[in-house]
Amino acid sequence: MAQDTPLRFVVMVGSLRKGSYNAAIARALPALAPAHVTIAPLGSVGDLPLYNYDLQEEKGFPPAVTAMAEAIRAADGVIFVTPEYNHSVPGVLKNAIDWLSRLPNQPFAGKPVAIQSASPSLWGGLRAQLHLRHIFVFLDARALNKPEVIIHQINQKIDPQGELTDPATRGFIADQLKAFAAFVRG
Amino acid sequence: MAQDTPLRFVVMVGSLRKGSYNAAIARALPALAPAHVTIAPLGSVGDLPLYNYDLQEEKGFPPAVTAMAEAIRAADGVIFVTPEYNHSVPGVLKNAIDWLSRLPNQPFAGKPVAIQSASPSLWGGLRAQLHLRHIFVFLDARALNKPEVIIHQINQKIDPQGELTDPATRGFIADQLKAFAAFVRG
Amino acid sequence: MAQDTPLRFVVMVGSLRKGSYNAAIARALPALAPAHVTIAPLGSVGDLPLYNYDLQEEKGFPPAVTAMAEAIRAADGVIFVTPEYNHSVPGVLKNAIDWLSRLPNQPFAGKPVAIQSASPSLWGGLRAQLHLRHIFVFLDARALNKPEVIIHQINQKIDPQGELTDPATRGFIADQLKAFAAFVRG
Amino acid sequence: MAQDTPLRFVVMVGSLRKGSYNAAIARALPALAPAHVTIAPLGSVGDLPLYNYDLQEEKGFPPAVTAMAEAIRAADGVIFVTPEYNHSVPGVLKNAIDWLSRLPNQPFAGKPVAIQSASPSLWGGLRAQLHLRHIFVFLDARALNKPEVIIHQINQKIDPQGELTDPATRGFIADQLKAFAAFVRG
Repeated sequence: MAQDTPLRFVVMVGSLRKGSYNAAIARALPALAPAHVTIAPLGSVGDLPLYNYDLQEEKGFPPAVTAMAEAIRAADGVIFVTPEYNHSVPGVLKNAIDWLSRLPNQPFAGKPVAIQSASPSLWGGLRAQLHLRHIFVFLDARALNKPEVIIHQINQKIDPQGELTDPATRGFIADQLKAFAAFVRG
Repeated sequence: MAQDTPLRFVVMVGSLRKGSYNAAIARALPALAPAHVTIAPLGSVGDLPLYNYDLQEEKGFPPAVTAMAEAIRAADGVIFVTPEYNHSVPGVLKNAIDWLSRLPNQPFAGKPVAIQSASPSLWGGLRAQLHLRHIFVFLDARALNKPEVIIHQINQKIDPQGELTDPATRGFIADQLKAFAAFVRG
Repeated sequence: MAQDTPLRFVVMVGSLRKGSYNAAIARALPALAPAHVTIAPLGSVGDLPLYNYDLQEEKGFPPAVTAMAEAIRAADGVIFVTPEYNHSVPGVLKNAIDWLSRLPNQPFAGKPVAIQSASPSLWGGLRAQLHLRHIFVFLDARALNKPEVIIHQINQKIDPQGELTDPATRGFIADQLKAFAAFVRG
Repeated sequence: MAQDTPLRFVVMVGSLRKGSYNAAIARALPALAPAHVTIAPLGSVGDLPLYNYDLQEEKGFPPAVTAMAEAIRAADGVIFVTPEYNHSVPGVLKNAIDWLSRLPNQPFAGKPVAIQSASPSLWGGLRAQLHLRHIFVFLDARALNKPEVIIHQINQKIDPQGELTDPATRGFIADQLKAFAAFVRG
């Protein structure tokens, strides 16, 4: 793929809180994307019911699941932006992955993925990333290794309007997006 | 604690499927408990909404969450019986843990916990157990190390009525329950 | 890369035992390789001293380390064949990785890697694989997701001469080698 | 156990470097111990050969292994103080654990253990701790959950003489030692 091939990434946010720090990061991504790359939000993981195989069998996949899957399939890559809950992936994010993984044409298979995590703690969601990496193996997603984006003390990097304004953080996110584009273009 | 101190364990099941293999294991537990130990089901993790901090702030904790927390606090130990989804903990189970962990009087703090997992695969949910162990550190739960109950090819160990009848499996589950009771009694 | 581009893989074995089951698997690989793929052993991880930064500073990298690194750099991919010790990667294998990772021109950077593990237990070294996957992120190795080769009860799959003769096991190893070659060729 | 029962902990350091930051932490521990607790170093993990079952069979366990095992058995708890190498446990530390785990009277069985890690990075060896926790399950060690001691940017917390002088770091290490003593006393 040429270096100017247009790419489209979609973003999956792991928190449902309106004022979510991770949602703020997701909103900042389009402006941080390299040339020829557009970045769009996916629908909310909060629109999906709790995963239940009986529901899937009786009523089929919920429309929010199939819509999210279509958007993923149409994208050149997926960026996960997520907090860490209890040293692991938030249940709401894992629940969305569980639904999506059951579709006959599994949307993450072979799909390039990148991870960003943020938390007010010193550890920035690092442990959630490690568990996500194991999940990606099963999904057969193609995960970017580096640079890792682990944003600690995120509360100090968000302005009073709730936007990600910290220049250093914006800088290393932009670096990852550039690396992710190069990774996808091969 | 004396060896005949009565103990009460509660069971948290990580699947919502009616015919769930893991639910079948949970149903088998009371009959496999050692002397002076009773085992009761917790409410379903399917009765909880998706975790959302805004919901918690605006409406308080859902009654299903506080009821589950009360039952856990009143118990001498919690047994997690869960499948593995996508090489990790099912989102529905993690979602319940995420809710429970936010309560002011966190119900898992210092609580003895044990894990059982089952799947039709050769690996029996082993990877979900590893992620649960990290979650338990944050929760400050007191996790039993051994014996590990990892039930592979569970579909071959369930009878046509959907009950866990395999003698070997019942045997090593009983062994774990005995070890768990000893662990709790200290 | 064309489907008939010749590839050369090297194999790193995680056990020093002469009669190692994993060494037996490593020996079986050349005969299981797809067309146009050759597979050769790397030197033994047992030839490296324990990693010590002072040693590296005072005497430079041991020749066994630099030789192993050269062989990895010259290869199109590395196959790790390893037991699991104490629910993780054997210290002897990790020690070799620790040495190799310190070289200025880190040999695993961008290098395609695949994992095979075997043990006499029911779990086949699965947990060692999960930890290796995290290590690969730091190394920036390019890890094959699937098929996963996790060989349980390996002692029943080795003949009296110590060779891997079990047809099913040989079959899914061959499947992984084929997938690995396709992964490397892109 | 009464609150003034004397306890003796031993410390296992995961780095062989003379100027190791983690060795500096280990040296600081005796002065940070609570009343009635003494803390002593274990022999160096660098004195053990690479683990090899054949060596064990042919010559028996190396004296450095059996001596270390004796010291662990005689102690009331073991404190691991370790860097992280390549997102995991250093090979040299894992190698020592691999040797010790093979002894007939496994020294870590039921033994209280605590983890401290430090690195110059922002992440303080956090990932090594996660892997150690899985290893402890197999060893059946009794691991302290909290407080977690994860020392980031350790290079800024060591004085020119190479000693751990940072008051905040010394404070939360002392907190962990106090919690560990309470955990052991039950």
